[in-house]
Amino acid sequence: MIKDTDGKILPKLNPDETGGFTNKEEAEAKMGPLKERLAELQDIFFAQKKHALLIVLQGMDSSGKDGTVKHVFSGINPQGFTVTSFKKPTLDESAHDFLWRVHKQTPAKGYISAFNRSHYEEVLVPRVHGGQDKAETKRRFRHIRHFEEMLTEENTIIIKLFLHISKDKQLEKIQERLQDPAKHWKFDVSDLEERKYWNDYQEAYEDIFKETAKDNAPWYWIPANHRWFRNYLALNIVVKTLEKLKLSYPKLNTLTPDISELISPRH
Amino acid sequence: MIKDTDGKILPKLNPDETGGFTNKEEAEAKMGPLKERLAELQDIFFAQKKHALLIVLQGMDSSGKDGTVKHVFSGINPQGFTVTSFKKPTLDESAHDFLWRVHKQTPAKGYISAFNRSHYEEVLVPRVHGGQDKAETKRRFRHIRHFEEMLTEENTIIIKLFLHISKDKQLEKIQERLQDPAKHWKFDVSDLEERKYWNDYQEAYEDIFKETAKDNAPWYWIPANHRWFRNYLALNIVVKTLEKLKLSYPKLNTLTPDISELISPRH
Repeated sequence: MIKDTDGKILPKLNPDETGGFTNKEEAEAKMGPLKERLAELQDIFFAQKKHALLIVLQGMDSSGKDGTVKHVFSGINPQGFTVTSFKKPTLDESAHDFLWRVHKQTPAKGYISAFNRSHYEEVLVPRVHGGQDKAETKRRFRHIRHFEEMLTEENTIIIKLFLHISKDKQLEKIQERLQDPAKHWKFDVSDLEERKYWNDYQEAYEDIFKETAKDNAPWYWIPANHRWFRNYLALNIVVKTLEKLKLSYPKLNTLTPDISELISPRH
Repeated sequence: MIKDTDGKILPKLNPDETGGFTNKEEAEAKMGPLKERLAELQDIFFAQKKHALLIVLQGMDSSGKDGTVKHVFSGINPQGFTVTSFKKPTLDESAHDFLWRVHKQTPAKGYISAFNRSHYEEVLVPRVHGGQDKAETKRRFRHIRHFEEMLTEENTIIIKLFLHISKDKQLEKIQERLQDPAKHWKFDVSDLEERKYWNDYQEAYEDIFKETAKDNAPWYWIPANHRWFRNYLALNIVVKTLEKLKLSYPKLNTLTPDISELISPRH
């Protein structure tokens, strides 16, 4: 939860960080009550329908975006929650501006939405793989800032979580995928290929942080080498964000008839 | 086609204007060839898939938005063309930011799209009918500028047509609706009610022009008391806009095999 846009961010962060916790059990003991609190807050959030909440999840391959969604939001009422995973754009999506498919999926008031990857992919992949020139990246950063500014001013709360793992940890996780039959489906040989571009991606992320971290749409850097700390911290950020809204259940609409009339009708 | 954002626009424009034409037949004689040219240009536009074209139609009730769409685009290949009419927002639309439903309907590259009413309604109706304060209108103008800037920089050509009729002409058209059984369905008693707000709407439009007329997303003011001149001018603007793109059919992709090989296979 360090916010610093001067100089480089990632080299200063230790992906092995575990906050004040010395072990997994300590963190997990706190997860239960936090999840209950999240469920309570979501209930009021849904009833009040004043804000929408958009949680953007970004991070290198194997940084644990899927796992974070699973562990942070598994206690939430699915009626008010959606996850959208943005994969390679379809032909129709590519034929529109880069924010088109993302804007469509933004949450309605009362709803919480997690983006597993997002519009930020559009200033990552095409940049690292050579198609996108500097001017275009710069232009897209401006469009992203304007887009997020519009969303926040129209009552969408935005938080952006960067899951920070080390290059060694990534390799370890890729190997896990090869060894565990339940994780084979997650293995993609292109993940190994993409590792060659590790530094380019880190550079691209530095620019993302510099260009798009705003008070109303902050980036949170989450040390993610330890899954349990990653989950704890992400959950904590979401809960804190909702607490800050000072949510309350809406009062009975004064336009509805006096309830006493309904209970003891005059006629 | 007057572009002037200093001072007020509408009082300077004569809605009875007919350009150089002295009668309907003169204008209609030019419509045929222009429509053919539009069809040719659309064919190349669709093949090239480099740009999208968005035509925003705004104007007071009865200014002829439906009629303009019908007469200007009736010769076009419907495969590459869509019309979206924006009515009162649905509950789901209202639960999102005001650009959400509009952005969803923006055309893909190669496509032409006409918006019959648009995001500009969101700085008209709520403003005239009191819900929207000045700060909110101002904020929305900024969001509209940013949104259109993003679209144009991502290769959508935007033209905005304001169909300008006089207050008397509007009354005449409302009366037509009452007299002609084929037009009864278009009559809505609220149209008469809205006439009371004529000046407020004109004021609101002045601000729209001042705040959102840009080189890349210009407003065109179309004298619309004479249907035939309105149609001619709108069609002419669309054709001129496409001509300026210097469209050409895409060349054969050099990655496709040499055609001579396909015609006389070596084996």
